[in-house]
Amino acid sequence: MHKIGIADTTFSRVDMYKIAKKTLKDNLEGVKLVRYTVPGIKDLPVAAKKLFAEGCEIVMALGMPGGKPIDKICAHEASQGLIQTQLLTNKHIIEVFIYLYETKNEKELFQVVKNRTEKHALNAIALLKGRETLSKYAGMGKRQGFQDIGQIKSQ
Amino acid sequence: MHKIGIADTTFSRVDMYKIAKKTLKDNLEGVKLVRYTVPGIKDLPVAAKKLFAEGCEIVMALGMPGGKPIDKICAHEASQGLIQTQLLTNKHIIEVFIYLYETKNEKELFQVVKNRTEKHALNAIALLKGRETLSKYAGMGKRQGFQDIGQIKSQ
Amino acid sequence: MHKIGIADTTFSRVDMYKIAKKTLKDNLEGVKLVRYTVPGIKDLPVAAKKLFAEGCEIVMALGMPGGKPIDKICAHEASQGLIQTQLLTNKHIIEVFIYLYETKNEKELFQVVKNRTEKHALNAIALLKGRETLSKYAGMGKRQGFQDIGQIKSQ
Amino acid sequence: MHKIGIADTTFSRVDMYKIAKKTLKDNLEGVKLVRYTVPGIKDLPVAAKKLFAEGCEIVMALGMPGGKPIDKICAHEASQGLIQTQLLTNKHIIEVFIYLYETKNEKELFQVVKNRTEKHALNAIALLKGRETLSKYAGMGKRQGFQDIGQIKSQ
Amino acid sequence: MHKIGIADTTFSRVDMYKIAKKTLKDNLEGVKLVRYTVPGIKDLPVAAKKLFAEGCEIVMALGMPGGKPIDKICAHEASQGLIQTQLLTNKHIIEVFIYLYETKNEKELFQVVKNRTEKHALNAIALLKGRETLSKYAGMGKRQGFQDIGQIKSQ
Repeated sequence: MHKIGIADTTFSRVDMYKIAKKTLKDNLEGVKLVRYTVPGIKDLPVAAKKLFAEGCEIVMALGMPGGKPIDKICAHEASQGLIQTQLLTNKHIIEVFIYLYETKNEKELFQVVKNRTEKHALNAIALLKGRETLSKYAGMGKRQGFQDIGQIKSQ
Repeated sequence: MHKIGIADTTFSRVDMYKIAKKTLKDNLEGVKLVRYTVPGIKDLPVAAKKLFAEGCEIVMALGMPGGKPIDKICAHEASQGLIQTQLLTNKHIIEVFIYLYETKNEKELFQVVKNRTEKHALNAIALLKGRETLSKYAGMGKRQGFQDIGQIKSQ
Repeated sequence: MHKIGIADTTFSRVDMYKIAKKTLKDNLEGVKLVRYTVPGIKDLPVAAKKLFAEGCEIVMALGMPGGKPIDKICAHEASQGLIQTQLLTNKHIIEVFIYLYETKNEKELFQVVKNRTEKHALNAIALLKGRETLSKYAGMGKRQGFQDIGQIKSQ
Repeated sequence: MHKIGIADTTFSRVDMYKIAKKTLKDNLEGVKLVRYTVPGIKDLPVAAKKLFAEGCEIVMALGMPGGKPIDKICAHEASQGLIQTQLLTNKHIIEVFIYLYETKNEKELFQVVKNRTEKHALNAIALLKGRETLSKYAGMGKRQGFQDIGQIKSQ
Repeated sequence: MHKIGIADTTFSRVDMYKIAKKTLKDNLEGVKLVRYTVPGIKDLPVAAKKLFAEGCEIVMALGMPGGKPIDKICAHEASQGLIQTQLLTNKHIIEVFIYLYETKNEKELFQVVKNRTEKHALNAIALLKGRETLSKYAGMGKRQGFQDIGQIKSQ
């Protein structure tokens, strides 16, 4: 049985946990989810670290940075913290961040959030299975939130 | 009984400690506050670390970065340090930063400081209670300092 | 026998592993490769750390950051994490990053990826052999992906 | 008896040590100063760490970054290092940095350096005395190098 | 007898090791040099760490970042890593970086590289001798690569 941590925020404008939960439950039998909700993305690194302390094998860190310049710096700080957390724990954290400026309207934004969260939930499952599970997709120009961009071969 | 640390600065233009103290005392019976006042926001990380060494369970880091470009870099450094401190101690630090450029005048600035500090004091209390206490607000587009922005649902 | 780790991504648009593998196999007899495929470049630091835990002496971290401003920040975070990983393990990680904006078209991009990956695979082998193996090329203006730029001497 | 470390640079254009020394000696009886002079501000973090290893309780890090864009990045790196040093040692480092671009002429620059160094020397003494020594000035809009900017109250 | 590490790169366009070696040999009797050549500046931090593991007391990290915007970020990452390395080892690393954009032509570039490397080699020797060896030059506006800018005194 696998134990997966999910850290999410109240700042986010979409219930990303719900999306991640459905994909994980549908694709990994008997998975146990442990949730940790924090105010914003800068609170995610320590939440992830605490989820690992509770025995999670991998953590999904879900967040939606705001649309102002300062929010990019916040996301940068959060990302640095998430990488540090991985190095301290030797475990993967799948960061799923969607910026409020990435789309033209709310409908499209919801679709990007849904698509990115679902694809990254599958990535999390793949990483749990082993370090070469994703190798068949290596160099394929995979994208989360948008369509895959494809591979460039020798010409 | 809960012990909460509050680190504040002499650089700030508002007595943020007073606001945080009132909200914490009003909403958490028997809370004990430990205060640490430093010159500026870059002094907050080690102050927070020392507050944890005195037995605090969570720390609020209160500060008001200046309005010049260099002040954004200072705030960035302070935030990175606060995240590192959390990872070293496995405890939350609620960062409450308000930039001097965020509002048009001093009256509005005071209101933003008050609102953000109060809401984050409640967040600190919620995090003390457990990792799913805030889950009911997850993905709701919560904002501190300004009005909530609201949730985007499937359309 | 040398054991070399190769971490690559599904985000990349070129199968960089294939290129690295060929150069390493052709130039280092009996080399054993250990592969780790992750979604994107920000997942590379912990993958490299785990490859060292499996006994690799050196790791090549292969990735292609996207072409948007945010992608530069992602690459910056990944690079910081790769440097931290080296300091934690006392081992070299050869970072092979190619930005999607570096060339005018896909054909040229493939050539840059190929050239940079091949040259850095040779660098990895040289570093395995000792700390002065590359000294004969020191200060020669070596470039990976493009032509060498050459040395400037006393005039 | 208190032991205070002072790290200064040859890059600085003002003898900041002399200013700090006078203020510290005038305001803290029997203080013992330990000096460490390095080439530039990026050498300050390890100098501060070594001063703590010699038993200093607090360190003042004195420097004057240059006026070019690259110098802002150098100062950023130095500041990050000074914060890391504080977290590693659990002790305060009072950073006193003055940018060459902060004033219109050399006369004014000297005044800013003098004022900022003196005020921060007093801050260092206050922090030695305890974590609430500065609390009476909290939220008062204190500035070093320039005039205080003052407090904003409820309106 | 002093043991000094020198880490240099194949990316650099000038043989900086040769310059550093001459100055160190001419000014420190019986000095033993340990060389480590890596591809680029981002490989310098772990090289320096490994040189300390071989018993070096101080390390000179020699590099020439490229002239593109991305190269400034690379240099920033390298510098952060060099500061971290110093904090992990409690030893000085003298960073000698020259940007390709710093001068108008190659002749001038060579002069800047030579001058900066020589002056910093002398700084390395001074730091070996003790923490107050450079104090007589503190606040004198010393520059490496260019002419000293001089001291500003009370007016």
